[in-house]
Amino acid sequence: MTDFYDNRRVLVLGGLGFIGSNLTLKLVDCGAHVTVVDSLAPGLGANWFNVQPVRNRIRVVVSDLRDADRLTALVRSQDVIFSLAGRVSHIASMRDPLIDQDINCRSQLSLLESCRQHNPAARIVFASTRQLYGRPRYLPVDERHPIAPVDVNGVSKRAAEMFFTLYHKVHGLHTVSLRLTNTYGPRMNLCGFGQGFMNVFLNRALTNSRIDIFGTGLQRRDFNYVDDVVDAFLLAGQDDRLDGRIFNLGHADHASLLEVVRLLQRHADVDFRCVPFPADYAAIDVGDYYGDFSRFHEATGWQPKCDLAQGIAATWRFFDQHREWYLESEHDSGVRSVQRIPAASTRD
Amino acid sequence: MTDFYDNRRVLVLGGLGFIGSNLTLKLVDCGAHVTVVDSLAPGLGANWFNVQPVRNRIRVVVSDLRDADRLTALVRSQDVIFSLAGRVSHIASMRDPLIDQDINCRSQLSLLESCRQHNPAARIVFASTRQLYGRPRYLPVDERHPIAPVDVNGVSKRAAEMFFTLYHKVHGLHTVSLRLTNTYGPRMNLCGFGQGFMNVFLNRALTNSRIDIFGTGLQRRDFNYVDDVVDAFLLAGQDDRLDGRIFNLGHADHASLLEVVRLLQRHADVDFRCVPFPADYAAIDVGDYYGDFSRFHEATGWQPKCDLAQGIAATWRFFDQHREWYLESEHDSGVRSVQRIPAASTRD
Repeated sequence: MTDFYDNRRVLVLGGLGFIGSNLTLKLVDCGAHVTVVDSLAPGLGANWFNVQPVRNRIRVVVSDLRDADRLTALVRSQDVIFSLAGRVSHIASMRDPLIDQDINCRSQLSLLESCRQHNPAARIVFASTRQLYGRPRYLPVDERHPIAPVDVNGVSKRAAEMFFTLYHKVHGLHTVSLRLTNTYGPRMNLCGFGQGFMNVFLNRALTNSRIDIFGTGLQRRDFNYVDDVVDAFLLAGQDDRLDGRIFNLGHADHASLLEVVRLLQRHADVDFRCVPFPADYAAIDVGDYYGDFSRFHEATGWQPKCDLAQGIAATWRFFDQHREWYLESEHDSGVRSVQRIPAASTRD
Repeated sequence: MTDFYDNRRVLVLGGLGFIGSNLTLKLVDCGAHVTVVDSLAPGLGANWFNVQPVRNRIRVVVSDLRDADRLTALVRSQDVIFSLAGRVSHIASMRDPLIDQDINCRSQLSLLESCRQHNPAARIVFASTRQLYGRPRYLPVDERHPIAPVDVNGVSKRAAEMFFTLYHKVHGLHTVSLRLTNTYGPRMNLCGFGQGFMNVFLNRALTNSRIDIFGTGLQRRDFNYVDDVVDAFLLAGQDDRLDGRIFNLGHADHASLLEVVRLLQRHADVDFRCVPFPADYAAIDVGDYYGDFSRFHEATGWQPKCDLAQGIAATWRFFDQHREWYLESEHDSGVRSVQRIPAASTRD
């Protein structure tokens, strides 16, 4: 699988963020020539330390996706483009809907237009989200499940997905969308809010603070360890048979929030309590969710290799070792990391 | 039905355009205090002559929807808001996708945000489109039909619809969306392109030019006469039971393009021929389409009163009498009409 990327030119949008940086590390390992684009917007998880191991072997461009001219220049001559930049906070999307719309929807259309005009041969993989299903009407949720987003983020992502499919059908671009579920692992953004609960729980465990679980704690989720998600992106980025299609990721084992806390307690002396949902969270909560990823499994053979206990253990080891880089307040993390990261100037 | 609007304050976005102006005339007739907002963008059908009969009884603001501050000021204290401004050309949406996205999707979200913050009690009716269904998988198409837009316009409109539904569910706004099918009648834009074929056929018939039918001419459509569509908007603007819902319009009688030409030939000595689809039209053609409007009928009692022969006769009479205002090139029509329209200064 990974031979494909040897000597390929790959663009990772959002490559200083959680999933983008893990993907970047793997791509470099595979011999790819990686250009990372990241806006370093506060609170979205961009962190120079995320790419520290490959800092001298990648090109990093600090740019906002909304800068369409810059984006156009960057997509030229790339073999594969991974579109992972975006806003992931459901709560923030309700508070600031137009920014969510601009970044998660309009900029994706702008990316597709740039590719159509300047690089129609590229493969483009879009990171979508299970959030667009809204409250599940049945479980596990497959791709035929009705689309009924409960927040602006879900609408924006759904519209972007439709653009990716459309640009394949009408213009023949090589697009594919992956609907991510709860992804966790090393390099995740521990200080962002409204991006699920795993990062909040980890933050609490690392700082020996009490975990507040919203609701009963019995709500169930499926969790993908980031290495499994990276594998899914690598597969999606090399297979023209997936063109124009949309796939769920997911995990056959699902777990309740309480079970997640119990697994964290194997590593940290952390207490918890159940509290009522704050009003703005309650309005967009989806209840139980777990997805059916058999469509992607049948198309590519992909399935998660890491179970939740292993994944939480690996995640804990990483953050326990590197906590200084991840426990700053969300508004400082990007900037402070820039200042502290060892030399290797930003090339553009 | 029309008593509701007596003394109400009503905002019509796109009120100088085809459907918006017909709605405005009817609202004034019902005693409403109407503010029209229109960008007068070339090619979209805005025409001062459209509102000439009520020119001194309405307030007209020339503004682009993308001017969010202006929009915010305008939505305050309105009782009902009709959102009819937008791009309707499927072809143009493919040539200039970001403008389509900005106006048909982002500006609608901006409108909703303005209402949420400054006028949450208003009723807001959104003009959506059957285009978002794509190529019908069954006929007639009801609202449960899969959404598979074949052009950017369809994606933008679908995303906007989802925002309207979402803002009802999460914020309690009084929103409703109507999915329009082929609407025709007096005041339609005869010089725009990519907005269906009826306007092109009418233009040809009025200028004694030959009509080119793309394809066999056997493709079927349902047609709503604009007065019936205006009635649908008036109903949707006064009924809180419709909140958060989406409805098809449509007509029980559908007709082929050839039948439309035959009806036009009752009034005009116009020739026709069938020609192959141009490539960009072929890529987004949806084949036969006619819709099931029983959901809206059951909710409101609405059904079309005007059949195609009557409607084409009335449309012909209007344009035959006022052809000078409608047969200019698309880039001139708005401007020239402004210059020629009798006094009554634009108040803002």
